[in-house]
Amino acid sequence: MELGLPGGPGPAEPGPRLRGLRGEDRAASASSVSQAEAEAGRRAPSVAAVLPAGGSGERMGVPTPKQFCPILERPLISYTLQALERVCWIKDIVVAVTGENMEVMKDIIQRYQHKHISLVEAGVTRHRSIFNALKALAEDQPNSKLAKPEVVIIHDAVRPFVEEGVLLEVVIAAKEHGAAGAIRPLVSTVISPSVDGCLDYSLERARHRASEMPQAFLFDVIYEAYQQCSDYDLEFGTECLQLALKYCHTKAKLVEGSPDLWKVTYKRDLYAAESIIKERISQQICIVMDAKEDEEHLGHCLEEMLRKELNHVKVTSGALCHADRHLQQIILEPCYNFVCVNVMTSDFEETQKLLNMLEKSNLSILYPVVVISVHFLDCKSVPFGQKMEHLMQIRELAKEVKKRNILLCGLLIYYPQDKQRLQESLRQGAAIIATLIKERNAGLVGQLLIA
Amino acid sequence: MELGLPGGPGPAEPGPRLRGLRGEDRAASASSVSQAEAEAGRRAPSVAAVLPAGGSGERMGVPTPKQFCPILERPLISYTLQALERVCWIKDIVVAVTGENMEVMKDIIQRYQHKHISLVEAGVTRHRSIFNALKALAEDQPNSKLAKPEVVIIHDAVRPFVEEGVLLEVVIAAKEHGAAGAIRPLVSTVISPSVDGCLDYSLERARHRASEMPQAFLFDVIYEAYQQCSDYDLEFGTECLQLALKYCHTKAKLVEGSPDLWKVTYKRDLYAAESIIKERISQQICIVMDAKEDEEHLGHCLEEMLRKELNHVKVTSGALCHADRHLQQIILEPCYNFVCVNVMTSDFEETQKLLNMLEKSNLSILYPVVVISVHFLDCKSVPFGQKMEHLMQIRELAKEVKKRNILLCGLLIYYPQDKQRLQESLRQGAAIIATLIKERNAGLVGQLLIA
Repeated sequence: MELGLPGGPGPAEPGPRLRGLRGEDRAASASSVSQAEAEAGRRAPSVAAVLPAGGSGERMGVPTPKQFCPILERPLISYTLQALERVCWIKDIVVAVTGENMEVMKDIIQRYQHKHISLVEAGVTRHRSIFNALKALAEDQPNSKLAKPEVVIIHDAVRPFVEEGVLLEVVIAAKEHGAAGAIRPLVSTVISPSVDGCLDYSLERARHRASEMPQAFLFDVIYEAYQQCSDYDLEFGTECLQLALKYCHTKAKLVEGSPDLWKVTYKRDLYAAESIIKERISQQICIVMDAKEDEEHLGHCLEEMLRKELNHVKVTSGALCHADRHLQQIILEPCYNFVCVNVMTSDFEETQKLLNMLEKSNLSILYPVVVISVHFLDCKSVPFGQKMEHLMQIRELAKEVKKRNILLCGLLIYYPQDKQRLQESLRQGAAIIATLIKERNAGLVGQLLIA
Repeated sequence: MELGLPGGPGPAEPGPRLRGLRGEDRAASASSVSQAEAEAGRRAPSVAAVLPAGGSGERMGVPTPKQFCPILERPLISYTLQALERVCWIKDIVVAVTGENMEVMKDIIQRYQHKHISLVEAGVTRHRSIFNALKALAEDQPNSKLAKPEVVIIHDAVRPFVEEGVLLEVVIAAKEHGAAGAIRPLVSTVISPSVDGCLDYSLERARHRASEMPQAFLFDVIYEAYQQCSDYDLEFGTECLQLALKYCHTKAKLVEGSPDLWKVTYKRDLYAAESIIKERISQQICIVMDAKEDEEHLGHCLEEMLRKELNHVKVTSGALCHADRHLQQIILEPCYNFVCVNVMTSDFEETQKLLNMLEKSNLSILYPVVVISVHFLDCKSVPFGQKMEHLMQIRELAKEVKKRNILLCGLLIYYPQDKQRLQESLRQGAAIIATLIKERNAGLVGQLLIA
């Protein structure tokens, strides 16, 4: 089910040197792996990823471990899995979770239809969790069901915005250097305190970097390092690159990462992550129009206004009856925001058709989908109250589709009006549509708004 | 104008040793400063604050320097000024801004009624900006209008959530040690790259800290350090504590700060800051009720439901006609969220009274104030459409008060109903109220929502 896996705007366009691996689907990737082996590693290596997720999230100040904190009602770790899954050349993803969260994690995998995931039990420290995950990938272990990869990516469950580009960069660098890791400039100066709590010295900010994730290693290098390292390392160490250096004399290549690699650490980071995700899934609006002449006219006026008001948003349109396939294509892009235009009608026939199509698509498994049923009504021909009462049926419909993560609202636009007033109503309608899409709040589901 | 200065939930309650400075108003503080001088510094020192705000915000990825980026339509730096202003013992605040932003900054000070602010021209680097601000406080400069403080706080324009507690801690520590600064644990391991871009070594995370703001210094110490330091320091240095150490041999005392001290650096930090501010001003709802018996009954039902649904929110209530003073008290706390309950009436007389009172209070200068006009209507006695048409007048009213940063929405609750259905309507009404208060989005102003 490919629809379950798309994530926001696709991965960043990789640079020229990354093209080799892109555009290949999983099958092609597997075949090139065999070639790579045959050609002594000149082509793409086999890659697995390890995700330690055994942390308690004590810095967050909330009882739920941060990797399980919900963003738009979906746990953070599911976003990270989604980011790794959409990279076709990552073969296996091994997640280390504590025994008490094993069932929670299984539910997440089932509910959000994650694929290629294996679970292992986390250790009491991050290093021990990673070691357990590596053991599951090593062929020397009994009952090992996974194939040993040439290169293993180590990432964090709480860095959901990792892009394919940087994953590929660390993998390529690891293949060449044995180890590689993403780095970022320091935001604050780093200092060393003396025992009496005073400043001992401060480090020159320009000569140091923050070590971030993802990191990648030749599997044999990092597995050897973990087998060699001391209990002290496993208990108190924080840096995998350091283990590869200390025990395998492998100097990791450092790769400059983007700000997106940041780690969800504090409660404010959850707020930021939610805003970023909301922004990403609000970048495209699809306007669904009836094919009749009148409707097209008004629908296109609204489309034009949305383009004007939301100049960063991609606005596409299609008709339900003629262009089923076109609409399917838009849904697949994927698009999470739909405006269904109805002219001179207060029934929900067209909206219902759209809702049926969306339900069939499974689009709303990963994100709440916003649907706005717009009704252009001539106030002179039918009494206001009668129309309103009819339109209020949207409440029941909204309650029904809410269960499937579809957020339905109604929007009434008066028509006909003089040209200037219509423009103003359209502008206000566009502002309301923008608000509903941006906030994506279930609290306003079933409301009939008026522009 | 005291109303202009409150900020979210007041400063954190300081510990016992901080009590000496609290509870004193500015006059009392000034008098204790004279005593302090007389008693050779055993009491509170005179304190000024310096805010370098000349940065270009290049890391933000937006053209506006980050300190001027809007949060709920107000520039970030205004929130930081507000956080410093509410600390009564900070006498002067010197802000360093670039020549091109001088007028912008003057407008901000006037519009948001900031007090005790002096502006100086920023230098080309952060250190040069701070030096310029210090010169304005030094008595050896010609045309100096400010009094030289005993202790100077240096803070960042982009750290709006600083609390009085940590400001006092660094001031007290600076008085004793000559210099002091807030620190935080490192979130990532810090590494040093070699010239070929590979890992040279990684630092032990537990033995290092991130140096944050605020910092505080005996004025004479830090001014001396800036006078002594080299052009290289002024151009490339990042750490004031380091200057005090290098040029005055003053070892700064390090003070553990809270996560709130974080610096708005990236676009995601703006999202986080907005969410935190929205959350802070949504912690209290005031329900305004008519004094009639019927109203009280329904109003209290709604109040009870709000308490149940929003268990972290403080819900207070008052009547407009009897308890004017009580309501004034609530406004002053300050409270930014009002629910005006109307029973069996679709006019806005009571709501208008509340709006008049809010406009007079200047409450909405710093934050958008949400007002929800709730109407309990008996659907059997008057035709639905007629009521709706009457209630639609809220749109004009909302448009009017929006100009003064008051966000007005209507909420219609059907009544009478059987007990169970009324409970369900009240619950839905409470959810809608919660959404409107939480999102605080101007896009839905003037809408009539239905529970």
